[in-house]
Amino acid sequence: MGRQPDSATTTATFADRLADRVVARESQIVLGLDPDPARLWPVTLGTEAPGATPGQRAGAAVRAHCAALIDAAGPACVAVKPQLACFERLGADGWSALRATVGYARERGLLVLADAKRGDIAVSAAAYAQALVGATATPFGDVEGLGADAFTANPLLGIDALQPLVDGARAAGAGVFVLVRTSNPGAADVEDLRLADVEGGGTVWERLAQIVAQLGGQPSAHSGLADVCAVVGATAPEHVARMRELMPYAPFLLPGIGAQGGRVEDIAPAFAPGRAAALVSASRSIAAAHEATGAPPANAARAEAERLRAAAWSL
Amino acid sequence: MGRQPDSATTTATFADRLADRVVARESQIVLGLDPDPARLWPVTLGTEAPGATPGQRAGAAVRAHCAALIDAAGPACVAVKPQLACFERLGADGWSALRATVGYARERGLLVLADAKRGDIAVSAAAYAQALVGATATPFGDVEGLGADAFTANPLLGIDALQPLVDGARAAGAGVFVLVRTSNPGAADVEDLRLADVEGGGTVWERLAQIVAQLGGQPSAHSGLADVCAVVGATAPEHVARMRELMPYAPFLLPGIGAQGGRVEDIAPAFAPGRAAALVSASRSIAAAHEATGAPPANAARAEAERLRAAAWSL
Repeated sequence: MGRQPDSATTTATFADRLADRVVARESQIVLGLDPDPARLWPVTLGTEAPGATPGQRAGAAVRAHCAALIDAAGPACVAVKPQLACFERLGADGWSALRATVGYARERGLLVLADAKRGDIAVSAAAYAQALVGATATPFGDVEGLGADAFTANPLLGIDALQPLVDGARAAGAGVFVLVRTSNPGAADVEDLRLADVEGGGTVWERLAQIVAQLGGQPSAHSGLADVCAVVGATAPEHVARMRELMPYAPFLLPGIGAQGGRVEDIAPAFAPGRAAALVSASRSIAAAHEATGAPPANAARAEAERLRAAAWSL
Repeated sequence: MGRQPDSATTTATFADRLADRVVARESQIVLGLDPDPARLWPVTLGTEAPGATPGQRAGAAVRAHCAALIDAAGPACVAVKPQLACFERLGADGWSALRATVGYARERGLLVLADAKRGDIAVSAAAYAQALVGATATPFGDVEGLGADAFTANPLLGIDALQPLVDGARAAGAGVFVLVRTSNPGAADVEDLRLADVEGGGTVWERLAQIVAQLGGQPSAHSGLADVCAVVGATAPEHVARMRELMPYAPFLLPGIGAQGGRVEDIAPAFAPGRAAALVSASRSIAAAHEATGAPPANAARAEAERLRAAAWSL
């Protein structure tokens, strides 16, 4: 399905590949790639053809920015997480830059988590899986998708809408990170609502956690982890222990460290099942580290990523 | 923001443009565009350059298919609803086909509702609004987004994640259709959950409906409608009256007619505030009408779209 053979291991599931990669790189840090064309690093441009459109030039600049960020901070990380919105706003040129960035990260040994937050009814969900981790049959031959190792998904539409995403991911040896409780204040508006009819109480996010556990099933013997994962905001560390109870085998992706106020030290329970059971995501706090320190962008990004890596690895 | 001047009216909000367009075209039908490259109409191909890749050829074929479908069924419709997953699975080539399809539909007087179901934290939500209805500032000049008239959004992340989508849409004179209760069976898993702490009971989808009403605010004097709209599956007609009570001014988009089992006749309460207060969406039942009748695809699609148009208009 367009995935390069994983030369480092012979394991097949995303969870097992993740676990091996975390050990090999001694990192649980996910480098967020949220390129804003108006705030790119002053990297070398000039890669675009003469007479290129603004979109083509911006796409080339975004691609160069992401490559420079990967070169700088990637060695301290296990994965990158491109935010699809930031690429889609450049249209087809942005999608080309995204695809190139995915390839660049994979060449450097990083896993790629496409931050897409997709969710739709079954037939459309299957198409999203084709787009992100699969391929599409056409009369002219198969068209490969993005080739990500995993992607984020929105569970509002329920199990029958998630299942095609999980099935498509499994067929490609990829993973799905389902939103359970997000890192923004608005999580209180819907995700935190308390449910009736639940013995002992319970919230919408606890129900979402149960769905994640149900879809994930039993963990692999190799890693002890399942291939249906959860996005769990690091800005609500008081919930992490309960989330781990409800989803004992799910790898967690913890955004919200840094710019959104979360601290690595507060989410230790997430790592209980093992080092690969929790990934710490940081975007602006790495890419914009130079704005606080005054150091060159690459140096500041490398230092901040390494600081986060060491803090998480020591938990 | 990349939107063509709307020559038919001088009104500014999406709701007012929608209301005027519904009257002018005597239609509340939304033509779903869900192209599957393996099941396209046998339309003229050969538009691709020699030596084109499978992706380029499939993109050209998808574009031709959508144009043929718009030519056939568009005259009975007020809008088209491209499903972004179906285009994204062809990567940059798919995005180019999507953009061309948006332009083609608008040239023929149809509104474009981008079925994206996007939702993300604030800074990413703002980027999605740029991608779908706005533009992006770059050092090389502004890059125009897709130029849609409206898009669908997922409200799981709460109000602070929806607000940038609404703000971006308003700045462009566009609309947002927020998922409230979807047309799939899995809607029961999360959207239908009953809430505690709500006087007189209430479900997750009723809370979502309240959020839609809150974000939409007061209706315009011209149309009596607000510019924050709701996606309300036609497969649960028993809820439509309650939805209208909770969202008195929101235009409804009702998917699930036809292939998913919903019937136009069952959703009459949705139209209570006026003809433009409810849009009926149909995709496969129009595009694949020929599979049931044996007629040429264009003829069958035109007949089915006209049948739906007349049924809805008579309510």
